Amino acid sequence: MTREATGTLLSCRSGIKVIDATLRDGGLVNDFRFSDDFVRALFAANAAAGVDYMELGYKADKDLFDESKFGKWKFCREADIIDVLGNNETEMKLACMADVGRCNFRRDICEKGSSPLDMYRVATYINTIPAAIEMLEYCDKLGYETTVNVMAISKETEKETDLALEMLGHSPAKAIYIVDSYGALYPEEMRVLAAKYMEVGDKYGKQIGIHAHNNQNLAFANTIECVAAGVNYLDATVNGMGRGAGNCALELLLGFLKNPKYKLVHILRFLEEGHMQKLRDGGAVWGYDLPYLLTGIFNRHPSSAIRYIKEKRADIIDFMNELLDQE
Amino acid sequence: MTREATGTLLSCRSGIKVIDATLRDGGLVNDFRFSDDFVRALFAANAAAGVDYMELGYKADKDLFDESKFGKWKFCREADIIDVLGNNETEMKLACMADVGRCNFRRDICEKGSSPLDMYRVATYINTIPAAIEMLEYCDKLGYETTVNVMAISKETEKETDLALEMLGHSPAKAIYIVDSYGALYPEEMRVLAAKYMEVGDKYGKQIGIHAHNNQNLAFANTIECVAAGVNYLDATVNGMGRGAGNCALELLLGFLKNPKYKLVHILRFLEEGHMQKLRDGGAVWGYDLPYLLTGIFNRHPSSAIRYIKEKRADIIDFMNELLDQE
Repeated sequence: MTREATGTLLSCRSGIKVIDATLRDGGLVNDFRFSDDFVRALFAANAAAGVDYMELGYKADKDLFDESKFGKWKFCREADIIDVLGNNETEMKLACMADVGRCNFRRDICEKGSSPLDMYRVATYINTIPAAIEMLEYCDKLGYETTVNVMAISKETEKETDLALEMLGHSPAKAIYIVDSYGALYPEEMRVLAAKYMEVGDKYGKQIGIHAHNNQNLAFANTIECVAAGVNYLDATVNGMGRGAGNCALELLLGFLKNPKYKLVHILRFLEEGHMQKLRDGGAVWGYDLPYLLTGIFNRHPSSAIRYIKEKRADIIDFMNELLDQE
Repeated sequence: MTREATGTLLSCRSGIKVIDATLRDGGLVNDFRFSDDFVRALFAANAAAGVDYMELGYKADKDLFDESKFGKWKFCREADIIDVLGNNETEMKLACMADVGRCNFRRDICEKGSSPLDMYRVATYINTIPAAIEMLEYCDKLGYETTVNVMAISKETEKETDLALEMLGHSPAKAIYIVDSYGALYPEEMRVLAAKYMEVGDKYGKQIGIHAHNNQNLAFANTIECVAAGVNYLDATVNGMGRGAGNCALELLLGFLKNPKYKLVHILRFLEEGHMQKLRDGGAVWGYDLPYLLTGIFNRHPSSAIRYIKEKRADIIDFMNELLDQE
């Protein structure tokens, strides 16, 4: 693959794709209970803003998740998507995440021709790569674009990462994602990782993606560092909505990107209309806070920090000691 | 000057100095009305955390600022400092900022021997460098350490910056600061600027400092990028308290630095005790928000964004148009 020049702070490169993951990662905050109006308004805002892909949620297995306990975007049924959004007549493509081990893909994923979805994003830990490849191949054969998101990469050794990337190089995935699930990586580590992924990407003709978390307030910084390294698939969410400390904010990212196809004003309008504030008023809590800083520093899953916030605890030093006790 | 190796993510370098600017930059949020208890608790926390310098406020000219309208830390009188903090018997040094044109230094700055202050930080715009040098020389002769903070550097041309740095190379300032007053710089720009400053620092035996603002949520990221480039003087404030979008958060910075002399737990305890929350409850507002993102993107002084927040406006698109009209 001939790599497109990475560009400068003034130029832009056409290969960049922005993926809005608000419904999917944000759904982890509110159990996917977004109103139809919210989803329609976000869809319209994203399409107008030039967002390339909108991720609608998960294709979760109803045998594993009680449907009465989640909103419809946890399952992303074709009928529900069409019911809310109609047939997608915009330039923007629609994506859905499928977790290895939590998706009955042979039963629930239909042929591309019968679905408004364009892309499946297969999320995997490093120890389930063969299962991920099986899913990627399945979705690819059905006619979908695919990407693969290797989660919690800050926990993996260099050797394991190298092996995983080699295996994924032979998969049909269009893009391989760096996923900093724990928000543990500093920009200088991110640059090293991005260079490694880009090397594999160049070798196998894959794009590289970045999905960053904001535990140390670095999600945006890490994302734009990846852009400078040649990473083209960029995940973001409105107001950074996402599990725990959340993600790279879409408004920050569109403010940075120089391609005139991206129009920040439409995301600003969506914010001005108060859609995100309504979610917060309804009890959804996300964003950088002290306990996330600590799980980020210690390279841990954010679950304990999410619990700390939920329980409205204010004993941050006890929390730090608990984290250290878990070693 | 032989430059100390910049270190790796696992090592540390002894030349690094952390400056807590909570009272000084944070004072711009609440007109310096910090209670004596707050100041004592912060002083104790900083000293225990291994912070190298604590900046107490400004040495402002009472002929220019009505004393009844500000707390005492706007003026940093020696008697007030000693009244609240006693004689400083910690390892931590005390600093004070003096603005060019807003400080009657010949009248108000006394000999080092009669003051608990150790360092003056002279803040200047690029067009008042000769006046800044006069103040630096004055403070130096009185026995103080000095640094110089060249503000709003994102607005200056490369040629002006080069000229300013050459002039300051001949001043007695121990450190020359990169000050991103508008929070407009991206990490890749910051790296270029840091390299330029470091070159002058190496030539004239000066340290380089970084004072970042958080308009684009990049204050911490830009600060640690500067660390990687060899910048040693690092400004931060607790909870990022500072004008507008605020600064690099001290808790993020201490969580990153690897020198065991820095002990994050003491800042966490200060936060746990609720001192910062009390300021917020009392009406102090700071931190990243949409209007700051826009002044950051457009490289503008944050004053209009501060006004927007103060007036509790919610018409962000009108605000963006106002910014564009100002060109």
